[in-house]
Amino acid sequence: MSAIGVFDSGLGGTTVLRSLAQRFPNEKFLYIGDTARLPYGTKSPQTIRKYLEQATKTLISQSVKAVVVACNSASTQVRENLFDGVPIFNVIDPGVTAALSASESGRIGVLGTRSTIESGEYQRRLREKAGDRELHIAAVACPLFVPLAEEGWIDDPITNLVAYRYLSALKESNIDTLILGCTHYPLLKSSIARVMGNSVTLVDSGEALGDLIQTEFSSGKLPVHSGPLELHLRSTDVSTYFLRMAETFLFPLKPDSFEKMDLLLT
Amino acid sequence: MSAIGVFDSGLGGTTVLRSLAQRFPNEKFLYIGDTARLPYGTKSPQTIRKYLEQATKTLISQSVKAVVVACNSASTQVRENLFDGVPIFNVIDPGVTAALSASESGRIGVLGTRSTIESGEYQRRLREKAGDRELHIAAVACPLFVPLAEEGWIDDPITNLVAYRYLSALKESNIDTLILGCTHYPLLKSSIARVMGNSVTLVDSGEALGDLIQTEFSSGKLPVHSGPLELHLRSTDVSTYFLRMAETFLFPLKPDSFEKMDLLLT
Repeated sequence: MSAIGVFDSGLGGTTVLRSLAQRFPNEKFLYIGDTARLPYGTKSPQTIRKYLEQATKTLISQSVKAVVVACNSASTQVRENLFDGVPIFNVIDPGVTAALSASESGRIGVLGTRSTIESGEYQRRLREKAGDRELHIAAVACPLFVPLAEEGWIDDPITNLVAYRYLSALKESNIDTLILGCTHYPLLKSSIARVMGNSVTLVDSGEALGDLIQTEFSSGKLPVHSGPLELHLRSTDVSTYFLRMAETFLFPLKPDSFEKMDLLLT
Repeated sequence: MSAIGVFDSGLGGTTVLRSLAQRFPNEKFLYIGDTARLPYGTKSPQTIRKYLEQATKTLISQSVKAVVVACNSASTQVRENLFDGVPIFNVIDPGVTAALSASESGRIGVLGTRSTIESGEYQRRLREKAGDRELHIAAVACPLFVPLAEEGWIDDPITNLVAYRYLSALKESNIDTLILGCTHYPLLKSSIARVMGNSVTLVDSGEALGDLIQTEFSSGKLPVHSGPLELHLRSTDVSTYFLRMAETFLFPLKPDSFEKMDLLLT
């Protein structure tokens, strides 16, 4: 039985992997991080589309049964739900759907990297899916959150201070739902929740994606595996730093393997 | 009379530009930041060498009288002091020379990005230039310093806390000299100095480079310009974010122009 493929520009997507693995502990996962070419956020849409196609073909060549694009920048370029018959999931749409369903007031916040926020993709898809419903969207770029997560400064006074700095204006804007629009941000959930308070629902894209995959399993569209959990990590460039970071992000899960793998060049 | 060319992978090198411009206020400067392809730190030496050659040729095609490589990652790949008869300066060697001259105890610290510190280039060149002299080198990667500088959180309590976190062990190691081995770090000098105290000399590569260029001017090897200061910024990708960042980094100086420019592909 084949694995679920997960693709990211780097290792941030291992938070999505962790979320999926904890939810589906009888599945096999094959994760590829394009660490040699990160970050994608500063690259052109054409380039990102090319890299995305290479990654998708590489995962399909490994006989995955589904491809999860766990990178926000790459997710903006996903054009099809199927590629060579294999279902493709992106990380933006489930977050958008979950936020619209969670929000009563229609006042929704979005956090992301500068490039995600400036692309306006979350804002556009929220409005598109909301249809005639009135929305108030407040989007905030939080550039320090990624390096704070990568340093492993979780539940840390410095991270709390940075969260307060970024989010205090958002707190005043009376949102009831907040999308964590970057793969690293779920690691900082406790700091973000501390600032925003209990009345704001935090939407974790990894969890929202889990809901979507659950419905695909339930409907039989996606075949279920029933072995022990397997987590296989591949990255286009390997360093002890990347391994350390993946271990921090996956904790308490542990990867079964971590190796260098080149993407098929298309 | 031609300009001094300055090259960086992004806009961090504008701190070097500012330092040179304040020291030589009758010169013209042409700065190119390869923002479309940043960061260089995660790229292979071969790729960095290719990009460096493209940038050098592009600056020379604009008739610069010298090329300053203001990027630490690119500086590690500078192989010659002359290219087509134009002098090439890198940002590492002047810092190394200044540190060896400033240090009495031979106990020298180096701060840099993770990739600069892991490359070991500062450590190697310090030992090489020190010859038989005994050195104790303590190198610390400070990944949050770049995003803190880019956020403009200068003289900020959060930055002070992060500096304390990164540097308190270094403070215990009794160094007397500390190299700021990243173009962004001079912006955080006051926070770094607050932790390290008065007994530690901070070596700013931009200033050390200025000393070297001064000797070239004095010896007549490099012709002096005597017009009003001109600062022309070019980057391979332009966004309002980049312009805002360049203005923060150059403050109180202002760029005379800021435009997109493609590098010559060699």
